[in-house]
Amino acid sequence: MALLIKTDIDRGNAWAEALASAYPGLKTHTWPFKGDPAEIDYALVWKPPEGELKGYPNLKAIFSIGAGIDHLASDPDLPAGVPVVRMVEPGLTAGMSEYVTLAVLGHHRFAQDYALQRQARIWEEIPQVAAAARQIGVMGLGVLGRDALAKLALFGFKLAGWSRTPKSLPGINCYHGEEGLRDLLAETDILVCLLPLTPETEGILCRAVFDQLPKGAAVVNVGRGGHLVEQDLLDALESGRLSGATLDVFREEPLPEDHPFWEHPKVFMTPHVASMTLPESACQAVVANIHRQEAGEPLRHVVDMARGY
Amino acid sequence: MALLIKTDIDRGNAWAEALASAYPGLKTHTWPFKGDPAEIDYALVWKPPEGELKGYPNLKAIFSIGAGIDHLASDPDLPAGVPVVRMVEPGLTAGMSEYVTLAVLGHHRFAQDYALQRQARIWEEIPQVAAAARQIGVMGLGVLGRDALAKLALFGFKLAGWSRTPKSLPGINCYHGEEGLRDLLAETDILVCLLPLTPETEGILCRAVFDQLPKGAAVVNVGRGGHLVEQDLLDALESGRLSGATLDVFREEPLPEDHPFWEHPKVFMTPHVASMTLPESACQAVVANIHRQEAGEPLRHVVDMARGY
Repeated sequence: MALLIKTDIDRGNAWAEALASAYPGLKTHTWPFKGDPAEIDYALVWKPPEGELKGYPNLKAIFSIGAGIDHLASDPDLPAGVPVVRMVEPGLTAGMSEYVTLAVLGHHRFAQDYALQRQARIWEEIPQVAAAARQIGVMGLGVLGRDALAKLALFGFKLAGWSRTPKSLPGINCYHGEEGLRDLLAETDILVCLLPLTPETEGILCRAVFDQLPKGAAVVNVGRGGHLVEQDLLDALESGRLSGATLDVFREEPLPEDHPFWEHPKVFMTPHVASMTLPESACQAVVANIHRQEAGEPLRHVVDMARGY
Repeated sequence: MALLIKTDIDRGNAWAEALASAYPGLKTHTWPFKGDPAEIDYALVWKPPEGELKGYPNLKAIFSIGAGIDHLASDPDLPAGVPVVRMVEPGLTAGMSEYVTLAVLGHHRFAQDYALQRQARIWEEIPQVAAAARQIGVMGLGVLGRDALAKLALFGFKLAGWSRTPKSLPGINCYHGEEGLRDLLAETDILVCLLPLTPETEGILCRAVFDQLPKGAAVVNVGRGGHLVEQDLLDALESGRLSGATLDVFREEPLPEDHPFWEHPKVFMTPHVASMTLPESACQAVVANIHRQEAGEPLRHVVDMARGY
């Protein structure tokens, strides 16, 4: 049994070690692979070069290293019929909920405003708002969205969620579809995007959406850069329609040096680090799926490539 | 029945209104009071002038508007025998736990480091640390400390607490006393001070304590400015012993304009706003205690003035 690893950062060895200890006997190769492509049974990848995967004729599954699989869906030569598996692992989920909670509490408690006051040496209280008076609206109710909502619930926020298809979650006002989006936005003070990037969600964080939020709302984008129309956000911050934004993902990464987000006073930004798949915990999810495949059982977290997640 | 209100900020009217609707028939007066001091049954105060309270001969209780009562204990003429009640109300507790969670997640996820990288337009990942690999140590296990720990528990941190007397809390490594402090510090990555300010805790956040923390630990002070030896913190940040600090309280408030904390790159600071007593929710706690007193039942949350909290 052989698995090919292609990461974009220097974690190939960490993965190889983690997998070796979780599945003794599994041969791992880090990309680029010089051997016979027919020997490779599984691929574990992040942003493989376009057309790369079709060169392996015996692939049984393609594991995405990230939760999103847009980096695979964009490959026109992705081998048809080979299941693509999204990453669902506790380390990734936990990291994302930490980041979302940090971002939401930051907006809720005016962290960025206090940072600006501090620069001007202004000692002034900004009146506190009770959590129960704020609605947090999470777009995307997959594993990550649901876990973030569970963490936020503890603080007493009003919680709402939005997804493509109807969902029902205890304690969460769940909306779906186009009409549901209007209802979500009308009452949401802090909007969190945890959607998968698909043709339907590309550019969803745009002026039309910002204009439906209550004046002074904040936006947190931890989905993909492609979800956000960056100029629309800049305009909404400029006009005061939005009070601030936390951004972890961008249209172009690394963010170009002359991009206005670098020093925008109403933006808190990080370099696509909201959550990282940790090989140490994630290898268990991969290995469990390989065992399922080899036992003829159905894989878990297989992507429906037609809908894009 | 009459109650005198003395706040340091312009909230006297909000209190009067909240109390009037929670206790019809209670006469409220805002300080300064021009009538007969003998008419006043209760005082609800924040930082009253020294000696002020001894002028009311018929006080049945003194309610502190804040959780801490150091602003009363420092009055040498505080009328003996009149019970002093600390503020315990859900709004104050919730606000503090929000702030502590924000501060802890900020240190855990390198918010300040990313802000500095951003200023230099550096796009670079700082390797994430699993919450389970970090110990959060909370000094002070009263209502506020316990609630903050309960919120932090959800994220999977290792949790520890320290108090003067032995306590036992599920899921928390509880330490107490001088020897317990050593044990707490040795393993604590993010130290949170939620202690009452007493002669014993004055200056407790000092070099001797910082030196016992693991190198690179962070400190969050949401107790009182008097807990922190400010120069020792500056030295520990300078030497790299500590990686950062979140400070909401200071020796002198407002913070003097030339104070180094205003622009220290490793400090996140706010102007004593971590939590505020909200008259709307807090009036219930005050009114419930007045009813107890009038019914001859024991008051709740009475301070032991000998120990100072």
